[in-house]
Parts: sequence; structure tokens; C-alpha cells
Amino acid sequence: MISVGVVGGTGYTGAELLRLLARHPEAELTAVTSRGEAGTAVSELFPHLRGAVDLDFRHPEEAPLEGCDLVFFATPNGTAMHAVPGLLERGVRVIDLAADFRLGDAAEWRQWYGMEHACAQLLSEAVYGLPERYRSEIASARLVANPGCYPTATLLALLPLIEPSLARPASLVVDAKSGVSGAGREARLGSLHCEVSEGFQAYGVPGHRHLPEISRQLALAGGVEPELLFVPHLCPMNRGIHATVYAEVPERGVDLQALFEQRYADEPFVDVLPAGAHPQTRSVRGSNLCRLAVHRPRQGARVVVLSVIDNLVKGAAGQAVQNMNIMFGLPEQTGLDALGMQP
Amino acid sequence: MISVGVVGGTGYTGAELLRLLARHPEAELTAVTSRGEAGTAVSELFPHLRGAVDLDFRHPEEAPLEGCDLVFFATPNGTAMHAVPGLLERGVRVIDLAADFRLGDAAEWRQWYGMEHACAQLLSEAVYGLPERYRSEIASARLVANPGCYPTATLLALLPLIEPSLARPASLVVDAKSGVSGAGREARLGSLHCEVSEGFQAYGVPGHRHLPEISRQLALAGGVEPELLFVPHLCPMNRGIHATVYAEVPERGVDLQALFEQRYADEPFVDVLPAGAHPQTRSVRGSNLCRLAVHRPRQGARVVVLSVIDNLVKGAAGQAVQNMNIMFGLPEQTGLDALGMQP
Amino acid sequence: MISVGVVGGTGYTGAELLRLLARHPEAELTAVTSRGEAGTAVSELFPHLRGAVDLDFRHPEEAPLEGCDLVFFATPNGTAMHAVPGLLERGVRVIDLAADFRLGDAAEWRQWYGMEHACAQLLSEAVYGLPERYRSEIASARLVANPGCYPTATLLALLPLIEPSLARPASLVVDAKSGVSGAGREARLGSLHCEVSEGFQAYGVPGHRHLPEISRQLALAGGVEPELLFVPHLCPMNRGIHATVYAEVPERGVDLQALFEQRYADEPFVDVLPAGAHPQTRSVRGSNLCRLAVHRPRQGARVVVLSVIDNLVKGAAGQAVQNMNIMFGLPEQTGLDALGMQP
Amino acid sequence: MISVGVVGGTGYTGAELLRLLARHPEAELTAVTSRGEAGTAVSELFPHLRGAVDLDFRHPEEAPLEGCDLVFFATPNGTAMHAVPGLLERGVRVIDLAADFRLGDAAEWRQWYGMEHACAQLLSEAVYGLPERYRSEIASARLVANPGCYPTATLLALLPLIEPSLARPASLVVDAKSGVSGAGREARLGSLHCEVSEGFQAYGVPGHRHLPEISRQLALAGGVEPELLFVPHLCPMNRGIHATVYAEVPERGVDLQALFEQRYADEPFVDVLPAGAHPQTRSVRGSNLCRLAVHRPRQGARVVVLSVIDNLVKGAAGQAVQNMNIMFGLPEQTGLDALGMQP
Repeated sequence: MISVGVVGGTGYTGAELLRLLARHPEAELTAVTSRGEAGTAVSELFPHLRGAVDLDFRHPEEAPLEGCDLVFFATPNGTAMHAVPGLLERGVRVIDLAADFRLGDAAEWRQWYGMEHACAQLLSEAVYGLPERYRSEIASARLVANPGCYPTATLLALLPLIEPSLARPASLVVDAKSGVSGAGREARLGSLHCEVSEGFQAYGVPGHRHLPEISRQLALAGGVEPELLFVPHLCPMNRGIHATVYAEVPERGVDLQALFEQRYADEPFVDVLPAGAHPQTRSVRGSNLCRLAVHRPRQGARVVVLSVIDNLVKGAAGQAVQNMNIMFGLPEQTGLDALGMQP
Repeated sequence: MISVGVVGGTGYTGAELLRLLARHPEAELTAVTSRGEAGTAVSELFPHLRGAVDLDFRHPEEAPLEGCDLVFFATPNGTAMHAVPGLLERGVRVIDLAADFRLGDAAEWRQWYGMEHACAQLLSEAVYGLPERYRSEIASARLVANPGCYPTATLLALLPLIEPSLARPASLVVDAKSGVSGAGREARLGSLHCEVSEGFQAYGVPGHRHLPEISRQLALAGGVEPELLFVPHLCPMNRGIHATVYAEVPERGVDLQALFEQRYADEPFVDVLPAGAHPQTRSVRGSNLCRLAVHRPRQGARVVVLSVIDNLVKGAAGQAVQNMNIMFGLPEQTGLDALGMQP
Repeated sequence: MISVGVVGGTGYTGAELLRLLARHPEAELTAVTSRGEAGTAVSELFPHLRGAVDLDFRHPEEAPLEGCDLVFFATPNGTAMHAVPGLLERGVRVIDLAADFRLGDAAEWRQWYGMEHACAQLLSEAVYGLPERYRSEIASARLVANPGCYPTATLLALLPLIEPSLARPASLVVDAKSGVSGAGREARLGSLHCEVSEGFQAYGVPGHRHLPEISRQLALAGGVEPELLFVPHLCPMNRGIHATVYAEVPERGVDLQALFEQRYADEPFVDVLPAGAHPQTRSVRGSNLCRLAVHRPRQGARVVVLSVIDNLVKGAAGQAVQNMNIMFGLPEQTGLDALGMQP
Repeated sequence: MISVGVVGGTGYTGAELLRLLARHPEAELTAVTSRGEAGTAVSELFPHLRGAVDLDFRHPEEAPLEGCDLVFFATPNGTAMHAVPGLLERGVRVIDLAADFRLGDAAEWRQWYGMEHACAQLLSEAVYGLPERYRSEIASARLVANPGCYPTATLLALLPLIEPSLARPASLVVDAKSGVSGAGREARLGSLHCEVSEGFQAYGVPGHRHLPEISRQLALAGGVEPELLFVPHLCPMNRGIHATVYAEVPERGVDLQALFEQRYADEPFVDVLPAGAHPQTRSVRGSNLCRLAVHRPRQGARVVVLSVIDNLVKGAAGQAVQNMNIMFGLPEQTGLDALGMQP
């Protein structure tokens, strides 16, 4: 049994993590913390967890985190970086679901997140928790930076083209659509039902924090800094990301379908659909899968990759559990076999 | 391993059954039939089952149903009654998720379903598959009539009041709200997104087929034929039933909270909420739970019971699996431990 | 031209009022106030009003309200009562869309709204702004208390039965469902898309503030204090109220369809549907209509009335404009001829 | 008064046209036809039109279309082309909301619509009904081809860049998202609430019929055949199109904001938002407006234009009424002044 702590369990990511851990056969939930909700029963805040999670939220200072084998941070950006060094010192391994350790560079962090990094020395040690690229590093990592939701969907769509340098780096467009849970469980006007439902809009066109994260990973994978246009949109649904990715692939002879199928042949959580398919976010809702389809419309110079995930699962809590499984030598699918819920 | 067949697996109830059975550790899906989709891969029709259900739909006449231990019928009303006698004769046990065996009387069946019953002789043998009332009969049944979705939510709300004859039989009002999946997976105008979303309406006020089913069970439980007003409504969501049940309970002294808690103390799938609560359908979405709350507003003569289920799970496929577990001596929660998915 | 001010124009009711007034041929919007948004352009907060409302929000103390012919209050409960006396003194007529003047009694106000009433002396003067009952009083009123959304839908459903004392007063049940905009445009967790969509729940079963408002009007209409069970529910849509009203009507001989049609024969905004119909909230979305249908299921003792309105229009801003039209001698439908928007 | 007929009034486009015409001060609805619903009252099919449209659907052969000044065709593709020549001969002007007259070439029509064109000789006469480009031609046209919904949103986004040849023709990407009403009011599985809500997906990536329509207009506007990647997506809402348009604009010095504002300075139905804005489909729901914003992220080579319309209004029925106003010399906004409905 892995003794597990969750710091910041009151958001949607945290709640989803609790839901997954509550049914994980090899994990034991030892502590869940929240500054704001200390003393409240988890099941009071999250009625769907009644009978499955019998803990109260505890103040982070009073929770037995140091006795855990693994601590997940499901906190706002800039929180984990203060607590992680102390935990690592005591031999506790950490998976951070926020952005604190996703960028490789403290200066870039400051630029995009507007604050100094509290433990820049750990940035180089932190392993980017995308198993499809860093599985062996994750296995031995002390500190895993769980990828963002948009980067997960985007990178899985682009890696097969970028790793072999098939795509022209200046041609990339990522038009991404996210469900509302991506905005978090905060009482904000823009996330109200009346502000979201029956509407659709782009946001962050001038620049979004997931852009440097994606660019960095593409540069690492392809050896070239890409020129990426990344436009996120808010879609009137709760869960799901659909990334529509455009890239110029000059070499016409390459069999894209085979390329994608081979790249992910051994991946338990990437499902390459048959040629011509259009994946639906619904098909992965509640599951840890990424479903992909690749098209070259009218045999032109440009390729379209469609990529769907559940932003709370493969885009956050599920991928975190996948990383935990890898770190602790468990079969990677342990506790993650839920099928998509449709309708 | 229980060898299982599913007849009519192309509706929402059927798909949900396949989803549950695909992850059930003691059931092996042997055959899935459909007249219209014979030859199609299940995963083509239901992309969320890709990789989990590797069967093709087969024509019912060509499927090896007679070799199964158990056959589920997820067919339209009036279909199972033609095939059930033959299967029972060959020793196959049956759970019918349609209405064919829910009413006790062939005349009443004809009146509400507009056709002659094809095997009226089995009506008295069929066990009504509400485990909270007929657990031991289900255990030994050859033929189980899985309850309707509205009846499940309503009966669980009313049994604690009706069994001890606390409610005045002429006072009952059931104001029920259902998600759209209750209307089935048929290409009907009234189920279009544009006809359902951002709208709410009642239907079937003059009479709905679930009324005689509820009335019969209440009469059996309370010894008196009730006078039930039952008004179903269509709610712009996919899953979920919320039954708001009104009853006059003349005896003011009874501790309703204790009454409900005691009635369901040993039930794994009925969760009586604390006094004052308002259960949310979201909290049981994807789970087999029924959540209940009981109120006596301003200590008046009348009581309000709030009851929520997922119509496709506890209201259909989940309850069917629960019945299978009981019939085959498995722990009742086997394969049914999914928590509600929220959001 | 009627010179009009709107106090508190930043909520959904206020925004809807601005939308209606912007297209009203006889009203001129002179001032819109907001403490929190003073200095902001209305069209910045409400992009759908760009090009139609060219005012900025002003601080209430600095807005020229006293020069208006009419001031609407679209403020939280307990705000208007402080400002109304001063305006009335200066000859400004007032329509309050909040609850400040809906109850007849300062003690009842204190009990349900938790504060002392600031101008109890005006409670008896204020006219309850339900034109279908108080048209002539509204015409000459200085101060109109615009009805609540639930009360509007409920009263229009019940008046034809209550006015002639046809319904047993102890038998009334109002099972009401509201879209989310009824909760207002505030950043509250419970109104988030992720907390509302794909879910349904009751709230306020022990007691809701619209209960005394409904009870008072029914008592005035029928001469008897009713025993009303009122259960509101939150429905995953933005606009719309559906009230399902149950009443025992002992006299079986009455022609209910004719009764309803005659009661509302001259009403421009009440549409009694043909016998057997089930009104849809969608059919009145954006319109000022109330649509009604009356049923007596299986010719029993009890009657079901179905009533739908758009809570922001007939349930708030539209009815306020209707009252303005009456107060200023305009044809009642002026500026209110929008048809329901479907889908 | 313009005497108007509507052929095929049973779809969403037709119903929206009826809704607009019912409140148009200069149009008189003379006949509404439907083969399938002949004899049915319009208000029975569309309850939101009760009291506003008092006609019955008539069989097209029996309707007095030839006495109309103008006939709208809101029929499936390939229907209008059979009836239009006869009407034109009798001096009736025609606006076709389907695709029959949108392409300039009978061969291209055959290729994309799979049938021979029935009156190819009219293709060159038909005026493409985008007033922002063909206003004067529309004024005198006998036959107007009302643009498709995607083309309207896309062309208004691209014309300011294409007309002056600022965009590289091989760089265009149109990532478009549509509400479900775009799929029409047909009982299709894929349009069910349970198949659409809480999901998002692309479709038609290999090729969509609106592609040649867009390409043709861009070629006419820019003098060069563009290389357009067009990917439509289905979004879980009823109304609205959001086109996110990407184009390389090599010349860095051009003031894009000024360019767009000048291009549409005199257009009553195109609203260029301030720099940095992100238009919301909700802000134009029910209105005939197109709202646009133009961005050049990080001052790069590529430009992003965001364009929103209501697909049933500016994308169909509203634009058709706008064209009618132009054809009959009315102020262009007559009957089209509805503001966006929010929420």
C-alpha cells in the first residue's frame, strides 16, 4: 500500500484525484489538506464521495504529510514550490499537478507566472510527467511535474510529427477547446452557468501560460524551437479538451496513419483511431485515454491532428495516478480502467 | 465466471450494461445482439467501449444465447416476452430491463402497453427486481423484471412510509424529473439537443406507463391501493432522475429521519442523507446509488421525500447487474463500485 | 417619452431590463446606477448591449434619478426601501423588482428577510404588480412591487381555481423548477456551470421566501389562508420557470378548460393552451408570456396546472415594463412583443 | 407591404424566418409550405409562434406563391432549383437559403452536392447575398443565394485581409465551431441531446460543402484562389458560430485594428470589437450581428481573427431578411433590431 497525501483537495482536480484514489487498490489516502476547509468532511464538500472518502480536510501544517510515501499537490500555481523541498528532504516523493515545475527555467517561470520561483534549483531535477515521453525518468523521479491539460492533448497529437522532424516548425497552429472545469472550482463570474452555457469564445489569444510549456516540450522532442500559434477556447461543457492541431508536413510520402499507430503501439492510454475518424471528447469522459486521429485533407501540404482527453483525468488527476503507478512499480493501468461515460 | 448475453445492446440502457459488464470481474460477455446492427462492431457504435468490448453485434437468431448462464434483455417493450420462455426452458436465467414482466396482470399489460402479452403465464413467476424489497426472491429467481427508472426512485422514497402504513394513500403526489436518456437512443425530434436543452416541460400528465407499476408495488407494500398523482418531466440533462414525493403523514410523532435510516441501514445502494439535505442527481451520476432526504416542512401534515438516482444505472443497467450479483451469489457490489462523477 | 432610471443594473434582471428598455419606443433610459461598476460602460459589462445602450454605470448618489419619471430598482432585497421614500416625495414613480414591498406586513418581512423594514408605512400603499389581478391599481400607483418569478408563475396557475374558491386550501402543492439565472449574477460556487449543468436538485424545502408572497396573494384572492407546500428546484438551464401545481378540486362538474380560458380571455400575456397540452419553457424564452395548461388526470379529485414563464421577462423585467406601460397609459404590449426564441 | 411566401418552413431556419417575418413591419406572410406538414397549423409545430403566425402549412403546389412579391426557400439543398425558374418567370423575386445558387459552376455543384443542377443557366445571374460585399447587386437582384452560415462568419473575418491581398493565400486556416441547430431539425441520432451535450468533436475534416463556397468568394475578393484548410466542429449549444481564422500577413506595418474598423465602418450588422477583445457567441444570440476581433499574437507573422454570429440569424434567416430589405428599398435594419439575448 502506498501511503498518499493530497494537498489542496478542494478544486475539481483535487476532487477527481480523491475519486480515483478512493478506488485505487494500492493507494491509501492518509491526509487531505485545505486551508479554507480545514475541519470540514470531504464528503460534505463533495457529496459524490460520501461513503468512499471518510477523511476531514486538515490544515496543511497539521496533516501527516511527512509520513506519506507520496504527496500530490493539487494547489494553485506557486504553492507547491514552497513546500516541496522540505518533503523531498524527508524522502517523500511528490507529484505536482500545478505548473510550478513544468518550465525548465526560473526566468521563464517569472515571466509567465508573475512571481519568483521559490526553489529554482529543483527545476532541472523535476521530471515532466508525460509517460508517453518520459516513462523511465518518471519511474525513478523524486519530483514529477504533472503536465497541463492543453499540453497533454497537444503534445500527444504532435509528438509523432515532431520527434522525426516531419513538421515545419513555423507552421504549427493549435486550436484548443476546453470544458469549463479547466477554469477551476472558484466562484468566478466567467464560470457561471449563465455565462458559459449556450456560448463559445476564445480567450488568451495574445498569450496563454500553456504556450511556453508546449513550446519547451516540442523543442526538446524535435530539437528546434517551434513557432506555435496557440488559441484556447471555452466550450460549454464540464469536461473534455479537443485540440485541433495543424502542421505543414512537406514530405507527402509518409504514411501518417502508420506513423501514429506505431508511435503509440505500446501505450495503454493513447488510442489512435482508424483513418478518417473524428474523436469525440465524450468517448473519453471519465477515462484516462487520449484518442487521436490524423488527417491530410485533400492530400495537401498540411496535416490536421484531432486529439481528445478528459481534462480532469488524462489532463490532470488520471495522469497523476498513472505517474504514481510508474513511480511505485505498479502496472500502469491500476485504478485507471474506467471507461468513458456516455452519454 | 458467469456467461452473459445481452439482447438489444444498441440503446442507452444496453450500452450502459455493456460498459458495466466489460469491467465486471465475474461476468464474461458472450454475445450481444441487435437486429439492426448485426455485423457492426460494438466499438464502432459506441466509441467509448473501444478496447473494452471486442464483440460484434449479432443477429439474435444466430447468437449463442442458449449457452449463457444469464441473458439480459435491453429491448423495447414487448420483445423479451417472445424469447424468454424458450430460454427459461433451456435453463437460462433472464433479467428483462423492459416492462414485459413488471405488471402482475395480463389485462393491465394490454391496457397500458397496447398489445397482448405473449407469455402471461410467466407474469406471476417473474420477480420484481427491486433488491431493497425482494432480495431473497431475486436470489432464486429464473426471471427478474428489472424495475423502471421512475418506479425505482419513487418506491425507494415511499417504501419507508408505505410499508408501515404511515402515509394517507389518497394523498400521494410524485413529481418526477428525468434526464433525456430516459427517452432512449432513438432518432426522435423530441430528443434533439435543440428541442431539449434550455427547456423544461411536463409530459404524460393524463397517464404514464410507470404509474401502474408504481401503484402495484405500493399496494403490495402497504396493503392498500394508493391514489397516486404521477407527473413526469423532461429535464435538460442526460442522466439522472429526481423524484419529489409528497405524502400526508398524519401521525406527527414519528421520527422520519430515523425511520428512513433504519429502513435502509443494511442497503449498500441506498444512502439516506442527513436531516435537512437536498440530494443532487449529479452526486450519483454513473453510480448505482439512490440518495434520499426526508423533510416535514414547517412541521405540517405533509412530508416531502427527495430521491435521486442515475436512471441508466440504479434505474436500469446497474440495478440489473445488482440483480445478477444476487442471483449468482456474488457480493452485491461486485462491479458496481463506481463513484458518482462530478462535475 | 418616459424618462427612466435603473438602479442596480448589473444583475441579470437589470441587464434584461436594459435590453427591453433599449428597444422600447416610449422610454428613454436616462441613468443606470451601480455602486461596484460606477464608471464602467454598460456595454463593457454586457457586450450584447453594445451599440444599444451607450451609458456608463453611475454611482447612485450622482445619477439624475430625481429627474426621472420612473425609477426601476433591480437591486438586492433591502436596498430599494432606503431610497424609495425620497424619490416618491419628489414625484418620481417607482417599480421595485426586489422583494421590499411585496409582503403586506413589516413583521413578516423581518421574519423572512432578516432585517427591519426601512419604510413600513409604504407597505400598504405599494401595489402588487401582477397586472392580471391589479391592473387598475397599478395604473394609478406611485409604487409598484413587481412580483417574484415563482409567485408570478404560481399565481397565474392558481388564480382561476382560487378566486372562485374551487380548490381545497389545504391541498395545494407547488413543485417549481427554475433556471439558474433566478439565482442572480453573483460569483457563487453553487451557480457555476460545473455545479449546475447535468444535475438537478431541490432547495429550500424547509422554507423559501416566495412562500409568504404566494400565500398572501392566494389569501387575498380566495379569502382563505391556504396551506401551501412549495418546493423550488434548480434546473440546468439559464431561463425559465415551470410550476407544476397540484390542487384538490372537489367539484367534478366544473369545466376547467373553459374556466381558465375565460379567466384570461382578455389578457395579452397569458396564453391558455388547448386541453391536453404540456407547455414548454422554451416556447416563452425571451417573451413576456405565461403559458398554462390544466389537467384533471383520470377524472380524479385532483387537478394539475402547468405554468411556464421566462423568469427574467414575465417573472421580472418584462412584467416591470408591462407595469410601466400600464402606469403611463401606454398600450400594454408596447416594447414587449418579442416572440419566444426557439431553439 | 411586401407579400411574402416561405417554402419549407419546418426546419430551424424556416422557423426563425417565420419568427422574424411575424414581427417585420413591412412584410406580410402570405403562405408557408411544407409537403410533410400540409394542413398542420404553424403554431402547432412551433408553439413559440402561437398567436403570431396564424397560418397552416400548405402543400407547395396549392400555395399562392406566384402572387407573392418575394418567396424564401428554406428547403433542403436541391429543392429550390426546381421551382425557382417558374417563379422568376412570373416576376416573383426569390431568396434561397439553401445552397442551390451559391456556387458559380454546375460542375462544382455536382461534385459537392451529388446531383445535376436543374437550372444551371441561373447560376451566373444569382447574386451571392452577402450585403457587406454585394449590396448594390442584391438591390436589383431577381434571385439571391443566401450565404451559408460558416461562409458568412468566415468571409466577414477574412475580407479585410483578402480584398487588399494582405494575407498569404496558402496560409489560411479556418477552425470553425457551430451550434447544433446548424445540423437542421431532423430526427438524426447525431443531433440527440445525449449525443451532443457534454461533448465536442470535429467533423468533415476531409471536406465540407462550405469549403468551395468560401474559396470561391475569397478568390473573387482577392483575385487569387486560396489554399484553405477548413475544419468544422460541433459544439454543445443550440445557436452560434465561432470562426477562428488564421492567416499569415507578412507585412508587419499594417494597422489591423484600423483596417477592420474602416472596412466595416458603415455596416449596420458588423461590429468590430476593440483591440484585444474576444467576442462571445452569446452576445449575438438572436441578433443579426457579426462581431469580430483581430489579433496578431506576439507581433508574429500570423494573424488571428475571431468571428461570431448566430447561425440562424446572420447565418441564415436574419441575413435573408436583410437581403429582402435591400431588395425592396427598406432601411436595412427593418425588423432586425433584436439585441443579443444573454443569458
